[in-house]
Amino acid sequence: MDPFFREADSVATVNARMAEDVDPRLATVLTSLVTHLHAFAKEVQLTQDEWGTAIDFLTRTGQLCSAERQEFILLSDILGFSMLVDAINHRRPPGATENTVLGPFHVAGAPIRKMGENICLDGLGEPCRFHGSVLDVDGRAIPGACVDVWSDNAEGYYDVQQPDIQPKWNNRGRFFTGEDGRYDFIGIRPTPYPIPDDGPVGALLRRLGRHPYRPAHMHFIVSAPGYQPVVTHTFVNGDEYLDSDAVFGVKESLIAHYHEATGDDIRWRSAFDFVMVPMQETD
Amino acid sequence: MDPFFREADSVATVNARMAEDVDPRLATVLTSLVTHLHAFAKEVQLTQDEWGTAIDFLTRTGQLCSAERQEFILLSDILGFSMLVDAINHRRPPGATENTVLGPFHVAGAPIRKMGENICLDGLGEPCRFHGSVLDVDGRAIPGACVDVWSDNAEGYYDVQQPDIQPKWNNRGRFFTGEDGRYDFIGIRPTPYPIPDDGPVGALLRRLGRHPYRPAHMHFIVSAPGYQPVVTHTFVNGDEYLDSDAVFGVKESLIAHYHEATGDDIRWRSAFDFVMVPMQETD
Ligand SMILES: [Fe+2]
Ligand SMILES: [Fe+2]
Repeated sequence: MDPFFREADSVATVNARMAEDVDPRLATVLTSLVTHLHAFAKEVQLTQDEWGTAIDFLTRTGQLCSAERQEFILLSDILGFSMLVDAINHRRPPGATENTVLGPFHVAGAPIRKMGENICLDGLGEPCRFHGSVLDVDGRAIPGACVDVWSDNAEGYYDVQQPDIQPKWNNRGRFFTGEDGRYDFIGIRPTPYPIPDDGPVGALLRRLGRHPYRPAHMHFIVSAPGYQPVVTHTFVNGDEYLDSDAVFGVKESLIAHYHEATGDDIRWRSAFDFVMVPMQETD
Repeated sequence: MDPFFREADSVATVNARMAEDVDPRLATVLTSLVTHLHAFAKEVQLTQDEWGTAIDFLTRTGQLCSAERQEFILLSDILGFSMLVDAINHRRPPGATENTVLGPFHVAGAPIRKMGENICLDGLGEPCRFHGSVLDVDGRAIPGACVDVWSDNAEGYYDVQQPDIQPKWNNRGRFFTGEDGRYDFIGIRPTPYPIPDDGPVGALLRRLGRHPYRPAHMHFIVSAPGYQPVVTHTFVNGDEYLDSDAVFGVKESLIAHYHEATGDDIRWRSAFDFVMVPMQETD
């Protein structure tokens, strides 16, 4: 390989520079990354000014990151890259519940509650009963499954975003299925909320003519010994942002039906069954 | 377009989200970027852990940036991306002097000096006479051309890296050609130096089995009214890093001959002619 730089050979020249004893996976990933980055620059004939804008954008994105804010994950999210990586790593057979993004608001160790209990502690919002079964792909109940749930409150904020305002563990809880594999709890009908849009990613969304909202959703992590964990949401049917989720998290199979339960003091009901696949040898 | 996320359609789903009245160039660049980023993730089947490592790497790269340090430009440099963008934007006919990267150490407004003067103010290093002509592509002298030059000192540091140690404007100067188009000044034979390698980019270089050194070079910006500015270096023939420049800046046509001038108190001589092309309508 010619060691000197020429536009036409740029990919080969850069990739040939790697030592021979580099970790093979790192070599594969970096070789592919260089190939695609150079192809991008050549395809659009990137100008020097555009390159400068990109350097400045990436710099500001990194500088905004802190313990409370991860602007690079937001960037990955709005480019559909987070969902793509999730999809690549969680392919499942038809009928099994699909994954979606974890999001930044999960907190491990939520209180373990009894079936039927209410996770809404601030009294805000429209009560909703969530219920259904945790099943294997043959439709058999899975006992001992953990259903870990969390949502924003009626004003669109998670408890961790408002530690001084919301009760700790507001709209969060863990439920363990019995022999029948069923779960059942009361929360609120979730509400749409915007991803943080006061940084470089929000500015990019605006330039792309995109809004920052996520459609209303209830987060679930369903796990059981011997099965692949399901990290997912259920979305509220009819939500105005279902077909324009800022982070591309919506899959058709995850849209749940919410209906009004007349004559019940719990106004809404949403039934959803989770179908789990066995852990693979390689998991 | 299906608005819901599916692995196979990920690129189309993300790109279809852009509004119709987006700036056309932004739309072109972002569409291509999303296409190539997704193709990369699919090609290598990027794992969730690798994605996390990448987010962390980019975050630390941004956080290291400051007024004195631009780690994202370093990242672009070591991936050959900076040189590629430079090449795309500065294609020239055969015989014209090629560009290379500007680098982070140029300072505008260096002292204007008379031909033959010495730019080395700290007395360190091996003196070298740099001389040659500024010509058009037909070999005619270009009078009134500005030859703006800078190099590291004998210890491998630019004056701006050692403001308390080196004299201001050490190894920098501007020279204007007369009717004969010739330039002629005394500096030092430049020495190789490492790019800053105590951050994430340096760690990546080590994992790739690459060293951080740049081969010895003298920086030049040659400009003249009506001509495209030439931002380039001349490299020292025989330098041990010529075929492994950490930032891929070397082009074969930019390797200059340095020879010992016996019987002269200026030990080295390096002749190099700059050939400029006219400014284009679009420049
Ligand atoms: Fe959420
Ligand atoms: Fe340099």
